[in-house]
Amino acid sequence: MRVVAALGGNALLRRGQPMTAENQRANVRIAARALRPIALEHDLVLTHGNGPQVGLLALQNAAYRPDEGYPLDVLDAETEGMIGYLLAQELGNLLPSGRAMASILTRIAVDRDDPAFQHPTKPIGPVYESEEAQRLAAERGWAIAPDGPMWRRVVPSPQPRAILEIGVIDLLVREKVIVVCAGGGGIPVVGIPEGGYVGVEAVIDKDYAGALLATLLHADAFLMLTDVDAAYEGWGTPDAQPIRDATPDDLERLEFAAGSMGPKVEAACRFVRANSGFAAIGALADAPKMLRREAGTIVSRRPIAGPSVRSPGRERMRPRTVAAR
Amino acid sequence: MRVVAALGGNALLRRGQPMTAENQRANVRIAARALRPIALEHDLVLTHGNGPQVGLLALQNAAYRPDEGYPLDVLDAETEGMIGYLLAQELGNLLPSGRAMASILTRIAVDRDDPAFQHPTKPIGPVYESEEAQRLAAERGWAIAPDGPMWRRVVPSPQPRAILEIGVIDLLVREKVIVVCAGGGGIPVVGIPEGGYVGVEAVIDKDYAGALLATLLHADAFLMLTDVDAAYEGWGTPDAQPIRDATPDDLERLEFAAGSMGPKVEAACRFVRANSGFAAIGALADAPKMLRREAGTIVSRRPIAGPSVRSPGRERMRPRTVAAR
Repeated sequence: MRVVAALGGNALLRRGQPMTAENQRANVRIAARALRPIALEHDLVLTHGNGPQVGLLALQNAAYRPDEGYPLDVLDAETEGMIGYLLAQELGNLLPSGRAMASILTRIAVDRDDPAFQHPTKPIGPVYESEEAQRLAAERGWAIAPDGPMWRRVVPSPQPRAILEIGVIDLLVREKVIVVCAGGGGIPVVGIPEGGYVGVEAVIDKDYAGALLATLLHADAFLMLTDVDAAYEGWGTPDAQPIRDATPDDLERLEFAAGSMGPKVEAACRFVRANSGFAAIGALADAPKMLRREAGTIVSRRPIAGPSVRSPGRERMRPRTVAAR
Repeated sequence: MRVVAALGGNALLRRGQPMTAENQRANVRIAARALRPIALEHDLVLTHGNGPQVGLLALQNAAYRPDEGYPLDVLDAETEGMIGYLLAQELGNLLPSGRAMASILTRIAVDRDDPAFQHPTKPIGPVYESEEAQRLAAERGWAIAPDGPMWRRVVPSPQPRAILEIGVIDLLVREKVIVVCAGGGGIPVVGIPEGGYVGVEAVIDKDYAGALLATLLHADAFLMLTDVDAAYEGWGTPDAQPIRDATPDDLERLEFAAGSMGPKVEAACRFVRANSGFAAIGALADAPKMLRREAGTIVSRRPIAGPSVRSPGRERMRPRTVAAR
């Protein structure tokens, strides 16, 4: 099988952990152990978030020379370097020595007229007091938005349209190379009239980028690996129930948290509607089980049994530890 | 022809220039214009220095959280991201849209018992007052060395032994992809007893890394592109003369500046001794001429005429603007 696996930013740096290299490396090792069985048996393309890391670089930039801040496309490229290296190294260390790995810097094109550019929503970088935030907004043309009692810069989050390195990635996968790519949603670029591309100040949602990657690679499975075991119906209520499997139509009838599970569910639906493969959302440690459709939320065009989200039949067909508890 | 071209760090960020993204991008554009004619006609692998960039990241690190400094392997990976992105994008913008580009994060293995680990010599990161430098040396186990009236951290500069991604790079070159790789001398790693690799606090000389890259790829030409037009005999004296062509044996009889031209000459000799191709050292703008052996210092096993460094016969055979002035 050809598998695209997307690691959430929290799989690389847990909430509240200091952002040290040691912590990142330790978490990458945990991720590598979870992915090893998949890498041994299948063609694997890995992608990953970069929220905490790009935030760290923005803070370092601001601490050193606030007036020589690097643009987001360059910071994204730096995080693809940092995380791509750690992932390739730690996963490679768990595989037979002949197995080739490659981390590819990946640019993703967005439309210059994407409506997101008129409505920046994605917070990045440090928090500022109101007055400082207003000054920076005026000086640098930033959009800003409140974040609790403080303010943060917000940037556009446009839709990914094309992956510039897709041909290279596909070539390497066909040659059985494990590829790490499209990290942090990819380095955001737009086409320019004279031909070619230029970077833009934006952040592409990494789940949408992963769905496009999996679609263009005609993946058999697209796994989104995070810190919860499934998408839940009624999340945060006493009746919360994990969704075991569903079609895109099933999921469209439900509501999910805008910043976290919402984009994952939407990414799963996009992939499944464009492909014959299935998508899965679940916990990193369950990755091999998810690939066997035995854990996580499985999204496919035709679920194994029944059309609705929570048919008892499906629970019976594929008993789970969660269901058995 | 298969060409490996190495860009000096100064080609990317000129001495004394502020280290802004704009300056780097502008310099990368100049480099891309010089490389375009080569990319249009030949198979091209690009590598590059990262001295100023890794210095910048070390300063940003120190400004934000001096006690959570990132190790050199991770900083190197970040600079491979930053520079690899800019190079691929700006060169790609000058080429037909179908021409594939790929920037590959590249690890280079060194020997754990390389004598360089006993004698750290390569200065990196910020300068410190004596007292602060002593404190950091004690706290973090750094080696330090005087730098004028101040002190700097020094790290080992071991010899490159293997390029872990060489198979992937070779595969892509065969498929006519322009590859950017091994930036900053590569991400330094050592083998571990249980199999696999771990990063080390070291900096690999980028010219030596380039020579190994060109050797392993069996390149026809290895170009080192810098800000002088050739290696000079008697550099800094009134009798300074550019060396037009030479064999490795010729060059071994001369002395070159340890930190700058010395490693380039040594890298050229290593490549030429291991290969049937030639090496060239010269100015970035002369790259296409160097490939035609019409500019720079050309190093090959058998120079076009005569065995010695400065035979008048060779000057006559290939007239140069420099010689004509």
